Amino acid sequence: MEIRLKEGERLDDLQKNGYQVIQDSNRFCFGMDAVLLAGYTRVKPREKVLDLGTGTGIIPILLRGRTKGESFTGLEIQPESADMATRSVMLNHLEDSVRIVTGDIKAADQIFGYDSFHVVTCNPPYMIAEHGLKNPMEAKAIARHEILCTLEDVVSQTSKLLMPGGRFYLIHRPFRMAEIITCLCRYGLEPKKMRLVYPTVQQEPTMVLIEALKGGRPRVTVEKPLIIYQKPGIYTDEIYEIYGY
Amino acid sequence: MEIRLKEGERLDDLQKNGYQVIQDSNRFCFGMDAVLLAGYTRVKPREKVLDLGTGTGIIPILLRGRTKGESFTGLEIQPESADMATRSVMLNHLEDSVRIVTGDIKAADQIFGYDSFHVVTCNPPYMIAEHGLKNPMEAKAIARHEILCTLEDVVSQTSKLLMPGGRFYLIHRPFRMAEIITCLCRYGLEPKKMRLVYPTVQQEPTMVLIEALKGGRPRVTVEKPLIIYQKPGIYTDEIYEIYGY
Repeated sequence: MEIRLKEGERLDDLQKNGYQVIQDSNRFCFGMDAVLLAGYTRVKPREKVLDLGTGTGIIPILLRGRTKGESFTGLEIQPESADMATRSVMLNHLEDSVRIVTGDIKAADQIFGYDSFHVVTCNPPYMIAEHGLKNPMEAKAIARHEILCTLEDVVSQTSKLLMPGGRFYLIHRPFRMAEIITCLCRYGLEPKKMRLVYPTVQQEPTMVLIEALKGGRPRVTVEKPLIIYQKPGIYTDEIYEIYGY
Repeated sequence: MEIRLKEGERLDDLQKNGYQVIQDSNRFCFGMDAVLLAGYTRVKPREKVLDLGTGTGIIPILLRGRTKGESFTGLEIQPESADMATRSVMLNHLEDSVRIVTGDIKAADQIFGYDSFHVVTCNPPYMIAEHGLKNPMEAKAIARHEILCTLEDVVSQTSKLLMPGGRFYLIHRPFRMAEIITCLCRYGLEPKKMRLVYPTVQQEPTMVLIEALKGGRPRVTVEKPLIIYQKPGIYTDEIYEIYGY
């Protein structure tokens, strides 16, 4: 079957297993965040994985490439994005293990049922509400701002969707760290690992990666810093490794 | 007046204003933690500062040296430590602005009253309870383990002692970060700044510095990493600066 690109769409190479993903520059395109989150997520053999707000489907596709999980589901509310993600899955012949579902994160417990995944991942909108937005229903706005779902929606749904002992992987902005941690704890998802991502060792971190355990005990390992650039324009070896070069 | 050293005590130079502090190797001696916390604490002119569990009095003495605060109070439950701290204050001729009070953190609100300080600092015991301790009443054990007070005691007292808009400065171990943040938020002390202290850029952080604001809004700045060593045995310039060399 031939997978067709629609107008405005392009194919991007994932540098992994020859995988490619369809993107549209007018919509939200995946960034380093998604690659870092996929690199941070541990999936054990035969585990079931759900990605909330999957967009282009980049995270399930990357996780399918680098782990031995059994199934990888991406939930996406915007039908155009879900359609693009579905065609990317077919393009890479991953229909046996990767599935894209069109639906609302806030209804994920009804779509999938309680205790149905070993691992949940999410690269959520970082910004609060619609503040300063011209067109809050635009695709990019929905991906970046908490318009259709809030942090609390993501966390409360995740705590229902995960099996006891299941793991949640989140990437977010450090400025919201206090909210993130209190919210995770409130819903019984105990932060167990945390890694801050610094552009260089001289700068404030721009991202935080978190692993939380459903029903875990309070003790978190803050890991060594993840530094992106060793000098201007040159990634550190660790970033090249995560990208799979 | 001559300040006498008791048996087992020694004088340590603080490398700042010629200040010296009395310590006893059989009791808890101040470490880099106290110096980092004093370096991290912002005190504006004419502000009143309280240090909870002051031990040798190192933090009020250092803050007196590097800020224009009006008064610096250290609260210490162990009479021998409080006595040593008091003699250090006299030795440095700081009786006009530094005061050591013998008393229990858990009763600090009764000792000082509500809303009585602009700034509270604390370098608390890091370890939980008495686990694995031979002699839980030993001076070092009390300084390191939550025997006489818990994190929640410190935070709940601080939220009473601070004026609205007052600032709390805490140094602690990163493994307890989730507890610290949820506890601060529960008592209305919103984390506003956070800095992780890494021995080297290749290692996990060993300490976290936090500034929390009484009644602040949720938004925290995670700052650039504080790296201790540039190579084995050689501090980074920033650490030398904090130590005042």
